[in-house]
Amino acid sequence: MNTLLTNARIATMDESFSIIESGYVFISGKTFKQIGAGAPPQDVLKQADVTTDLKGKWIVPGLYNTHGHAAMTLMRGYEDDLPLDRWLKERIWPFEGKLTKESVAAGRDLAMVEMIKSGTIGFLEMYHLNMDDFASRIEQVGMRAVLTRSVIGLCHREEQDAKLNESADFAARWDGAANNRIHTMLAPHAPYTCPIDYIERIVDRARSLSLPVHMHLAETKKEVDDYHTSFGLHPLDHLVEYNLLDDTSWLFAHAVHLEDSHVSILAKSKASISHNPMSNLKLGSGIAPVMNFIQAGIPVSIGTDGVSANNTLDLWQELRTAVLLQKGMVQKADAISTQQALRMVMREGANALQTGQKGMIKEGEEADFIVVDHTAPHLQPETQLHSHLVYTAVGSDVSDVYVQGHCLMKNRELLTLDEEKIRYEVNNQYQATVQSL
Amino acid sequence: MNTLLTNARIATMDESFSIIESGYVFISGKTFKQIGAGAPPQDVLKQADVTTDLKGKWIVPGLYNTHGHAAMTLMRGYEDDLPLDRWLKERIWPFEGKLTKESVAAGRDLAMVEMIKSGTIGFLEMYHLNMDDFASRIEQVGMRAVLTRSVIGLCHREEQDAKLNESADFAARWDGAANNRIHTMLAPHAPYTCPIDYIERIVDRARSLSLPVHMHLAETKKEVDDYHTSFGLHPLDHLVEYNLLDDTSWLFAHAVHLEDSHVSILAKSKASISHNPMSNLKLGSGIAPVMNFIQAGIPVSIGTDGVSANNTLDLWQELRTAVLLQKGMVQKADAISTQQALRMVMREGANALQTGQKGMIKEGEEADFIVVDHTAPHLQPETQLHSHLVYTAVGSDVSDVYVQGHCLMKNRELLTLDEEKIRYEVNNQYQATVQSL
Ligand SMILES: [Zn+2]
Ligand SMILES: [Zn+2]
Repeated sequence: MNTLLTNARIATMDESFSIIESGYVFISGKTFKQIGAGAPPQDVLKQADVTTDLKGKWIVPGLYNTHGHAAMTLMRGYEDDLPLDRWLKERIWPFEGKLTKESVAAGRDLAMVEMIKSGTIGFLEMYHLNMDDFASRIEQVGMRAVLTRSVIGLCHREEQDAKLNESADFAARWDGAANNRIHTMLAPHAPYTCPIDYIERIVDRARSLSLPVHMHLAETKKEVDDYHTSFGLHPLDHLVEYNLLDDTSWLFAHAVHLEDSHVSILAKSKASISHNPMSNLKLGSGIAPVMNFIQAGIPVSIGTDGVSANNTLDLWQELRTAVLLQKGMVQKADAISTQQALRMVMREGANALQTGQKGMIKEGEEADFIVVDHTAPHLQPETQLHSHLVYTAVGSDVSDVYVQGHCLMKNRELLTLDEEKIRYEVNNQYQATVQSL
Repeated sequence: MNTLLTNARIATMDESFSIIESGYVFISGKTFKQIGAGAPPQDVLKQADVTTDLKGKWIVPGLYNTHGHAAMTLMRGYEDDLPLDRWLKERIWPFEGKLTKESVAAGRDLAMVEMIKSGTIGFLEMYHLNMDDFASRIEQVGMRAVLTRSVIGLCHREEQDAKLNESADFAARWDGAANNRIHTMLAPHAPYTCPIDYIERIVDRARSLSLPVHMHLAETKKEVDDYHTSFGLHPLDHLVEYNLLDDTSWLFAHAVHLEDSHVSILAKSKASISHNPMSNLKLGSGIAPVMNFIQAGIPVSIGTDGVSANNTLDLWQELRTAVLLQKGMVQKADAISTQQALRMVMREGANALQTGQKGMIKEGEEADFIVVDHTAPHLQPETQLHSHLVYTAVGSDVSDVYVQGHCLMKNRELLTLDEEKIRYEVNNQYQATVQSL
C-alpha cells in the first residue's frame, strides 16, 4: 500500500529541526519513501494508491508516553484530595482489589482511545494483571508499546521467584512482537517494595535476556527518608553499591528526590528518566530536578503516570507542564528551548522505549506520524509551529494518527478501536466495581 | 424569549456544590427562571419557545479570566525563549510599536474567539490602545468584560494627567454599558512604571468615581529588588505608606513576590488577586504563594495574562496548572479541594470582575452558563464531574456558551463572531506587522 499526503506543513523534528512549509510525504508499506517540498513529482503521484490533500494541516512525529498504568484508567477522578498514603489505602487499593479481567480491559481500551485521540503512538505500561491480554490487544490496535509485568517483592522468596519467572517469561514471549511494535522490560515496582537482593536477581535476569529495567525511583520525600532510616542510604546509592547500574539500561520513572551526587551517577550510567510532572505535583510528591538532568546529559522523556493520579493522558499538557515548571523553578525564561522541549515527547520518548525509531519525519524511517488540524484559534497566527505544539496544542487538535504506515485515526475517527462501545463498557465496569466495594 | 434545556447534568456550583444528575434549566429573557431535577413540568414545557434535549451533556457556570491583554494575541509564540528584559526590548516592544487599529482589532477578535470556544464568558482587558473600539465590539459579541485603559507614568506630569483623564473618561463612559455586561476599572500599569504620587492621583480618581483599581504587582523578583534599591521598600509597603489600600477595591495581577507581612496586609484590605501561573512560570517570574492567600482569606481568581507570554487563553489549563502547582509546592495532595479549585474560575472570577453575578447555576440569577460535551475519552468514566472539570477538561469540550440567556456558541459554532474571517484577518495582520518591522 502506497499512501501520499500532499499540501502539508511538516515539522520533521530532524537533527536541525527543519520545517517544510508546504510539501508532501510518500509512504510505501511501513516506511517514509519520499519526503519533499512543493508538489510531489510525477513518479510519486503514479505510485500512490491513496492520495490525500491535507490543505495545510501539519505533519508531526507521534508522541511517546514513557511511564503509565493504563489499567488504572478506570479510576480517573475516583479520589483527588487525599494525601498519598490515605489515597492508596482507603481508595485505590480497595478499588484495585475488585478489578476483574473485564474491568482491567475496559480501562486499558479507554487509555488507548485517549492516547490515540491525543496523538500518542507509543507508551510504556507497568502493571501486574492480564498482561498477555493487553499485548494481544495492542497487536490488533496498532500502537507501539513497552510492556512490563511489574513485581512487588514484599513476600517469600518462593513467591518472589514465581513473579520474576512470570515477568521474564512474559517479556521473552512478547519482545519484538507485533511487527516489532511491542518491546518489553523487567520491572521491579520500586526500591521500597522490592528488597535489594530481589532487585539484584531481577537485574541479573534482565542482563541475561538483554532487556532494560524499568522502576519507580525516589518519587516522594517520605519514601526516600524511610529508606534512609531502614537501610542507611538513598535507594539509588543502594543500587550503585550492588553494581546494579552497570551493563544495564535503566528507565527510571519520577526521580524527584535526587541529590547532585545522584545526577552525576546517572550521567555516567546508561539510565534515562521518565519525568511525570503532573502526577508528581498532584500527589504532592514534588518537582524533579529536570534541568540538572538535561545539563548533565541524562536523557529525559515524558510520562503521564496512571490517570488515577494525573488525571489525563494528554501528553501535550504533560509536556507543557514540564517545560513551564522548569522555567518557573529556575526563574529563567530561556531555561529550555521550544525545540529541545518538543524533542522530549518525540525522539527522547522513542529512545526511552527502545523502539529503534528516531521520532523524526525522515526518508527511510518507519512511517509514524500524526496530523494536526491547524485551524483552532489557539494555533493562530499559524506561523510558530514548534511554539504552538509546545505551548498551546491539545489532544483534540490531532486529526490523524499513523504507525508503521497504518492509519489508526482519520479525521478523529478511530479505525482500530470502537470508541462508543468502549465508553459504554468503561462506565458499566466502573459502576459494577463501585457497587462491589 | 424562553429557552428550555432538558436532560442535562448540572454542576450548579452553588454554596453546597450540589449536582443535579439529570434535570432541566428554563431561561426566561436573561434569567434562570426555573431549575429542577427530572423532566420539566407541563407549565414550563408550555412556556418554552425553544426546547433542546442535551442528552446528558453537562451544564456548568461560565468561566472568568481576570487578567489579560487581548490585543497582544497577535503575538502568540512570537518569542518564547528569551529572558524577560530581552524578550520585551528585542521582540515584544518593537512588534507592539507597529500595531495598528486593524491589527489590534484582529488580535482582540481572535482572543474572543478562543475565549468563547473554551468556555470563558467574562474577562479583564488591560491595554492602552483603541479601548472604545473594543468596548463597542464586546457590546456586539455579547461577552462580559472589565475594561481598563492602563497608564504608564514614566513621563511629564502633563502627559500623566492627560492619560489619567483619558482613562477615567473611558471608565466613566463605559461602566455599566452593554446591559451591565461591561464594567471598568482604573489601571496604573505597575509600581515600577508609575511613580507613587501618580498612583495616588489615580487611586483618588478611582475613589471619586467609585471604581476599583487594577495593577500588576510584584511579578518578578528583579522588579521588587530594583524597587527596594530605588525607594527602600517593597512596592506594596509603599502603597500602604500612602494609605492607598484604604477605601479602595484593588485587583492585583500576579502577586508573586510577597512576604508573609504582605499577605497579612492584603487580608485586612478589600484586595483580591488574579493568579496567572502559566505566564509566571513561562517568563521565569516564579510561583505565587497562593495557599497563603487562600488560608488568609484573600480572594484568588485566575487569569491567563496575554498570550504573548502564556500562550493560551484556555482557562481549564490555567486552573489545572494553578492547582497542581500549589499541591506540588507544599507537597500536600490535599492542599486544595477540587470544588474550591473550580470556584476560582467561577464565583471568585465573577466577584473579581465586579459582575454582580454569583458564578452559579441558580434560579433568579442571570443565565450565564456553558454546556460541556461529556463524550470525550478523558471525561470517562463520567461520574466525577467536578474532578473532570478541574483535572482533565479542555476548551474543546465546551459545546455551547450562554451569557444573559443569549447563545454565543452552539455546537461549537460561534453565533456572534465570524471565526473563519477572523482567522484569515489575524494571519494577514501578523504577516503585515512582521514585514513592517
Ligand atoms: Zn507509576
Ligand atoms: Zn499582564
